[in-house]
Amino acid sequence: MNLRGKFITFEGGEGSGKTTALRELGSYLDSQSISYMITREPGGIEISEKIRGIILDTQHTAMDARTEALLYAAARRQHLVEKVKPALDAGVIVLCDRFVDSSLAYQGYARGLGMDEVWNINQFAIDSLMPEMTFYLDVDPQVGLSRIAASQEREVNRLDLEKIEFHHKVREAYQLLAEQYPCRIITINAEQTSIEVVNQLIFEMEKRVLKDIRASLSNNIV
Amino acid sequence: MNLRGKFITFEGGEGSGKTTALRELGSYLDSQSISYMITREPGGIEISEKIRGIILDTQHTAMDARTEALLYAAARRQHLVEKVKPALDAGVIVLCDRFVDSSLAYQGYARGLGMDEVWNINQFAIDSLMPEMTFYLDVDPQVGLSRIAASQEREVNRLDLEKIEFHHKVREAYQLLAEQYPCRIITINAEQTSIEVVNQLIFEMEKRVLKDIRASLSNNIV
Repeated sequence: MNLRGKFITFEGGEGSGKTTALRELGSYLDSQSISYMITREPGGIEISEKIRGIILDTQHTAMDARTEALLYAAARRQHLVEKVKPALDAGVIVLCDRFVDSSLAYQGYARGLGMDEVWNINQFAIDSLMPEMTFYLDVDPQVGLSRIAASQEREVNRLDLEKIEFHHKVREAYQLLAEQYPCRIITINAEQTSIEVVNQLIFEMEKRVLKDIRASLSNNIV
Repeated sequence: MNLRGKFITFEGGEGSGKTTALRELGSYLDSQSISYMITREPGGIEISEKIRGIILDTQHTAMDARTEALLYAAARRQHLVEKVKPALDAGVIVLCDRFVDSSLAYQGYARGLGMDEVWNINQFAIDSLMPEMTFYLDVDPQVGLSRIAASQEREVNRLDLEKIEFHHKVREAYQLLAEQYPCRIITINAEQTSIEVVNQLIFEMEKRVLKDIRASLSNNIV
């Protein structure tokens, strides 16, 4: 029996509802007694947490965009080696909130470092451990940011509005990636209600992943 | 007048005498009233120092070789942006103790990550800011390690001997790089006395760099 789990990533702009969707998906997998792990970098891995600490330190105003991209790739590598890979080896479904595509969209495209260049360093970081499947939760940045503003009970501020261009670029990048990798990336319309989004995720997961897992489990019992 | 300085790196295995050579070269440039800066990563740059701190933390036994290579590249990037580039822009000669070739030789070749792969992430890090010239101080690892042992007034220990294979690989890598980049990398026989090594370095520097600098200085005066 091949114990190797499934590596599934979740991508999307601000307010696309990834967190809610992942929680609901987790409840569903619980109800089906299927073992899974939800994670996101740096994910409690000490080395990755320390690297993230350097990235987020507000004192580091001199941080160059390429340094930042390399640090993200380093934190990714260590999280992958210490947390994701062992879980996959144990046959667990790993649901990861953001992965390579986030770097390509945010650093590569929206911040202008170049998607190919950012892909190069990430390819080194992941060393062929790419997700089998990626759900891209697609939402208009205006809608996404309004959701965040609503949930935080504050108005969308000037800063959010000034940055809307950036968020549009992020969406553009995700859409390009979804076109480029149609087999791996499944676009979900995240402007639907969260129940609709989760139902669609469960439907796709059942069709593409859970079917096989149930079959391999029952074969094993037989 | 083109103020842009010259970026020169120094490479070599353990005990190749880089530190002494750089100090002596510095004295010579002082005597010639030519402005220079000697540096080595992380070079006092806060972000790079913190990254180096993560690499060297002995608690981090789980550190993956690829994570380490990405962290070295990140520290390199920041040192380059904050320290090397401003000095070059100011017309200073920058003498840097170890640079990209060290990563290629140590991580890429001797630790087996692959020189091409390590070059990819370093290419991203340096973004075309390659040294004009690289001095490779070539020494037999046995000789180099004996020098270190002698200077530290201790015997070469079992660990040094066990690792001799590793140091031979590092040398092999440097020699391959010197063959591959004959215009950039100048091999110096570092088994000569330190005076002979420094004289040869001064000779090469005069021929390739200082001649132009003096010419541009005197043109400027005229």
